[in-house]
Amino acid sequence: MTTPAVSRYPVPKLEDLPDDIRARMLEEQEKAGFIPNVFVALAHRPDEFRAFFAYHDALMLRESGLTKAEREMIVVAVSGGNDCMYCFVAHGAILRVYAKNPLVADQVGVNYRKADITPRQRAMLAFALKVSERSGEIGDDDYAALRAHGFDDEDIWDIGNISAFFCLSNRMANLINLRPNDEFYLLGRVPKQK
Amino acid sequence: MTTPAVSRYPVPKLEDLPDDIRARMLEEQEKAGFIPNVFVALAHRPDEFRAFFAYHDALMLRESGLTKAEREMIVVAVSGGNDCMYCFVAHGAILRVYAKNPLVADQVGVNYRKADITPRQRAMLAFALKVSERSGEIGDDDYAALRAHGFDDEDIWDIGNISAFFCLSNRMANLINLRPNDEFYLLGRVPKQK
Amino acid sequence: MTTPAVSRYPVPKLEDLPDDIRARMLEEQEKAGFIPNVFVALAHRPDEFRAFFAYHDALMLRESGLTKAEREMIVVAVSGGNDCMYCFVAHGAILRVYAKNPLVADQVGVNYRKADITPRQRAMLAFALKVSERSGEIGDDDYAALRAHGFDDEDIWDIGNISAFFCLSNRMANLINLRPNDEFYLLGRVPKQK
Amino acid sequence: MTTPAVSRYPVPKLEDLPDDIRARMLEEQEKAGFIPNVFVALAHRPDEFRAFFAYHDALMLRESGLTKAEREMIVVAVSGGNDCMYCFVAHGAILRVYAKNPLVADQVGVNYRKADITPRQRAMLAFALKVSERSGEIGDDDYAALRAHGFDDEDIWDIGNISAFFCLSNRMANLINLRPNDEFYLLGRVPKQK
Amino acid sequence: MTTPAVSRYPVPKLEDLPDDIRARMLEEQEKAGFIPNVFVALAHRPDEFRAFFAYHDALMLRESGLTKAEREMIVVAVSGGNDCMYCFVAHGAILRVYAKNPLVADQVGVNYRKADITPRQRAMLAFALKVSERSGEIGDDDYAALRAHGFDDEDIWDIGNISAFFCLSNRMANLINLRPNDEFYLLGRVPKQK
Amino acid sequence: MTTPAVSRYPVPKLEDLPDDIRARMLEEQEKAGFIPNVFVALAHRPDEFRAFFAYHDALMLRESGLTKAEREMIVVAVSGGNDCMYCFVAHGAILRVYAKNPLVADQVGVNYRKADITPRQRAMLAFALKVSERSGEIGDDDYAALRAHGFDDEDIWDIGNISAFFCLSNRMANLINLRPNDEFYLLGRVPKQK
Repeated sequence: MTTPAVSRYPVPKLEDLPDDIRARMLEEQEKAGFIPNVFVALAHRPDEFRAFFAYHDALMLRESGLTKAEREMIVVAVSGGNDCMYCFVAHGAILRVYAKNPLVADQVGVNYRKADITPRQRAMLAFALKVSERSGEIGDDDYAALRAHGFDDEDIWDIGNISAFFCLSNRMANLINLRPNDEFYLLGRVPKQK
Repeated sequence: MTTPAVSRYPVPKLEDLPDDIRARMLEEQEKAGFIPNVFVALAHRPDEFRAFFAYHDALMLRESGLTKAEREMIVVAVSGGNDCMYCFVAHGAILRVYAKNPLVADQVGVNYRKADITPRQRAMLAFALKVSERSGEIGDDDYAALRAHGFDDEDIWDIGNISAFFCLSNRMANLINLRPNDEFYLLGRVPKQK
Repeated sequence: MTTPAVSRYPVPKLEDLPDDIRARMLEEQEKAGFIPNVFVALAHRPDEFRAFFAYHDALMLRESGLTKAEREMIVVAVSGGNDCMYCFVAHGAILRVYAKNPLVADQVGVNYRKADITPRQRAMLAFALKVSERSGEIGDDDYAALRAHGFDDEDIWDIGNISAFFCLSNRMANLINLRPNDEFYLLGRVPKQK
Repeated sequence: MTTPAVSRYPVPKLEDLPDDIRARMLEEQEKAGFIPNVFVALAHRPDEFRAFFAYHDALMLRESGLTKAEREMIVVAVSGGNDCMYCFVAHGAILRVYAKNPLVADQVGVNYRKADITPRQRAMLAFALKVSERSGEIGDDDYAALRAHGFDDEDIWDIGNISAFFCLSNRMANLINLRPNDEFYLLGRVPKQK
Repeated sequence: MTTPAVSRYPVPKLEDLPDDIRARMLEEQEKAGFIPNVFVALAHRPDEFRAFFAYHDALMLRESGLTKAEREMIVVAVSGGNDCMYCFVAHGAILRVYAKNPLVADQVGVNYRKADITPRQRAMLAFALKVSERSGEIGDDDYAALRAHGFDDEDIWDIGNISAFFCLSNRMANLINLRPNDEFYLLGRVPKQK
Repeated sequence: MTTPAVSRYPVPKLEDLPDDIRARMLEEQEKAGFIPNVFVALAHRPDEFRAFFAYHDALMLRESGLTKAEREMIVVAVSGGNDCMYCFVAHGAILRVYAKNPLVADQVGVNYRKADITPRQRAMLAFALKVSERSGEIGDDDYAALRAHGFDDEDIWDIGNISAFFCLSNRMANLINLRPNDEFYLLGRVPKQK
C-alpha cells in the first residue's frame, strides 16, 4: 500500500511557501520533531492558514483560567463528538503531553463522563459539547452551572470559543480528509519517551 | 422595555479600542450606515477579533467560482440549521442586497429545497449543510455530485470552508447572545431603499 | 424565470369554486389586499378546505387566554422547527401585524430562546415545540411549568392544539410545495405601511 | 385501581352536548357498540370537534385510489412513529377489521418494513412516514417513487394528507392523555367475533 | 400468498438438531403449544443458540426484585424503541400472560408514559430505555432515581442487563427478519382462553 | 487520587469464584499478562458471566470469512458509536495486536470512513453500524451491498451478530462504569513490544 495522502488537496512544497508560513512550519518541526499535517494541508491557502493559526494561538496560548491541558481536553472531546479523526489523534497526543497522563485523551475523546477528571472538568466538557452540538439552546442555566464550579465569564468564553473554533477545524479536516501524522498516535503514551 | 443588550459580555467603547479595530468599525459604519453588532461584541477580545475577520475576509472577499450572493446563501442556510438568529438576520440582509432579491434570504434560511434558486445552488447548499451537520460522512460521492454541477475542487473548498467558518460563527453568536442590529431586518427588502 | 407555481397541484379558478369557498377567498382579499396562497391551493379539495379553515378559525379566532399575537408566535416557532417556508413567511407577516413589532417574527422563527419576548411567552413556545417534536413525552411536569406562568388548562389546550394543527398545516405545505405570496415578506416590517 | 380517566380534560355528559355532536356519537355507538374515546374527549370543544371529524371524514371516507385498509395502515404506521398509544390501538383495531387480517396492525405499527404487505404498500408507508418525520425534505424523487408503484397525484395527496392529519391527531391524543377504549385491543383479532 | 419465511436464513429440521437443542424446543412446545420462532431461527448456529438462551434464562428466570411481568415490560418497551416486530409481538404475549392483563403490552410497547403502570414501573422503564438508547449518559443520578423508588443495585443491574440483552436480541431479529408466530398475536388477550 | 474502581458493583476475589470462572481468568492472565476488567466485573454474576463469554467465544473464535482483526474492527467501530470507553480501549488494543497495525484502532473507532482499510472492510463497518444504530431499517439492499463485496450470508450473520453482541456489551460496560485496565492503552502500539 502506498502512503495515503495528507489531504484531498495539493500540498505545497516547503520552498514554495511564503516566508512567514514556512517559518511557522519550521518552528513546529523544531518543537515537535515533525510538521503536523494540519500546517501542511492548510498552507494550500495562505490567507486562510494565517487566520486559522492566529485564531488558534489567540485561544490556546492566551492567559486563561483554564490550563493548557484543560483546553486540549475540550478539543479532544469536541473532536470525538464530530467524528474528526485528525483532531482526535493529534490533539489527543498534545493532551497526553500537557497533562502528563497517557490515559486521559482516549477517555475524554470517547466518553468524558467516564474519564478520570474532576467534576469541574466534567462540567466544562458538558458545556463545550453543548456549544458544539446544540449551541442554540445555551442559556443562563448553563452559565450558572459553570459559575458554580468556579469558572468566571472569561473562562466560559474560552470554553465556548475553543469548542466553536474546533467545530470549524473538525469540519475542515473532514472536508479535506486530513490525515494525522503517524507520530501522533504514540506521543505521550510512553513515560520515558517525553 | 429597555434596549436588550448586544452581548452577554461587556462591549468596549469605540474610543477604548486599538486603532486597527476602531478603523475597521468606522469603515463598516461608513459602508452600511451602522456598525454590525458582531464587530462591537467580538472587540471584547481584540486578538480573536482580528483572526475572526481575517478568516472571514479571506473566504468571503477572495476571487472564487462562487458569487458573493452564493457565498451568503451558504451562510444563511447553515445559520438556519444552527438556530443562529444573528447570522440568519444579518447575513439574510447581506444576501438580499448582493442578490438584489428581497425573497431569497428567508427562503434559503428556512428550507433551501423550496427556494427560488438553481439546481446548482441547491446542490451547493446540500453540501454546505452536510459539512455543517454530518461532516464526518463527507466522501467522494459528495465531491462527485458537486463536480457534476460544474464546481471545481477550489469551489468545493470554498463551500465547505464557508460552512465550517459559520459553524464557528453561529456558535459564538449563540454563546454570547449576540443581538442583530434592528437595521438588518428591513435591509434589502424595499427596492428603492437601496 | 417564469413565476414559480403556487402548488404542485392544479389550482382552481375563482369562478369554478363553490360559492362558500369563493366567498371566503374574496373576504380574505378584502382584508389583506391579496388572497393568501394557502386558500388558493387547498381549494383543490373543497371538503378538506372547509374542514381546514373551520379548524383554523376555531383555534385562532376564539376567545382565549392567549392574545392573537401569541397564537401567531406559536405558529411561527413551530413552522420554523418543521422547515415550513410557507407558514414561516405568511404567519411571520401576520405576527408582525398583530404584535405591531417588525422584529419578533424572525426572532421567534429562528430561535425563540433569543427573542425579545416575556419569560411566560418563552415557556409557551417551549411547550408548543415539545408538542410538535416530542409529544409522546408531554407529561404532568410540562403542565405544571405552564401553570407556574399563569396559564390555565384551557390555555394549555390552545397552545397544544395550535401547535398540533400547524404540524398538519406545515406538512401539507411541504407536501404540495406551497409558495408564499410575495406580499407576505414585507408585510408588517415598515411602520407607516400599516 | 380506579378506572383511569379518558382525558386530562373534563368530558361532557352526552345530554349536555349540542345535538349534532350527540347524534354523531350515537351513530358511532350504533356502528361499533361503544363510543370511541376520541369523540368523548374532543367534545370538550364542540367547534374543534366538528372541524376535526369533518377533516377526518373528508379524507377517510372519500373515493380514493387507496382502499380503506390502506388508509388505516398509514394511520397506524404514523401513530407508531409518533408514540401515540390511542391511535395505535384504536386505528389498529379498525385496520384489522377493514383488512380482515388480525396480524397486520401490530406489524405495520411496529415496523412496516417487516409487515406482510405489498411492495406498493411499503412505498406508500415510507412516504407517509417521511411526511410525518421529515416533510421539509419531500421532493420530486419521492413523488416519482410513488408514481412508479402506480399511485397518481391524487393518491399521493391522500397519503400525505392522511399522514399530516394524524400528526395533528397524535399530538392532541398525547397532549390530553387520551385513553383508548378497552374494546379496541381485541377488536378484529378473533375471526368469529366479526 | 405463500407463508412468509421464519428467517432470512435456513432453519434446521428438528431431527437434524443436536439433542440438547431439540430437547429445549420440545420443552417450549410443551409449555406454549408451539415452538417460538426465535428457537427455530437461532438453531441455525447451535453454539450461539446455547449462549443466547443461557443468557436469557440467567436474566429472566433468576430470583430478582423484579417480577417476571416487570421484566417482560422492559423487554416490550425496549423492543418498541428498537422497532423490533418479533420481540414486540412475542414478548407482548408473554407480558400479557404474566401480568394477567390484556392491555399492558400494547401500552408499554407504544408509550410507557401513558401505560396503566405504577410510578415505580415508569421509572424502571425510563431507565431501561436510557440504557437502550443513550447508555453512555447513564450516571449516578439515574441510579439515585431508581433507588428513590426502592430498587437496590442488584435490581438496577437486572433492569440494565435485560435492556442490554434485548438490544442484542432486537438487532438479531431485525438482521434475520425473524417472524413472530401467528399464535403470539392473540395470546393473553382473551380471559377464558388462558 | 486513589485508583478508580473497576466497576460500580463489588468485584469478587479470585479465590471466592467458581472453579470454571477462576480458570478462565487465569487463562486470560496467562495470555495477556493481566486479567481484563470485563472478566473481573462480570464475575459478580457467574451465570451471566458464563453465558456472556460463551456467546463471545462462539462469535469471535469460530471459523469465519472474517479475519480476527476484521471482527475486532467491528467491535471497535460499534463501541465508538456507542460511546463505550471500555470496549473502545480494550478491543482497540486487541485489534492493534491482531492487525499488527498500531494506527487502525484509533482510526476505525473515531471514523471508519477515514481509516486505512479496504473498501470491503468499509462496507462491512457501514453494515455493522447500521445494525447497531438503525437495525429496524436493515433490508435486502444492505445484504446486496455486502454480497457485492464478496461476503456470503454466513459472513453477514457474523458481522451483524458481532455488532449486536457488542451492543449488549457496550451497554453493560456503560451501566456498571467498567474501567479499562491501564495496560490496554499502550498494547500493540510499540512494534518491539509484541
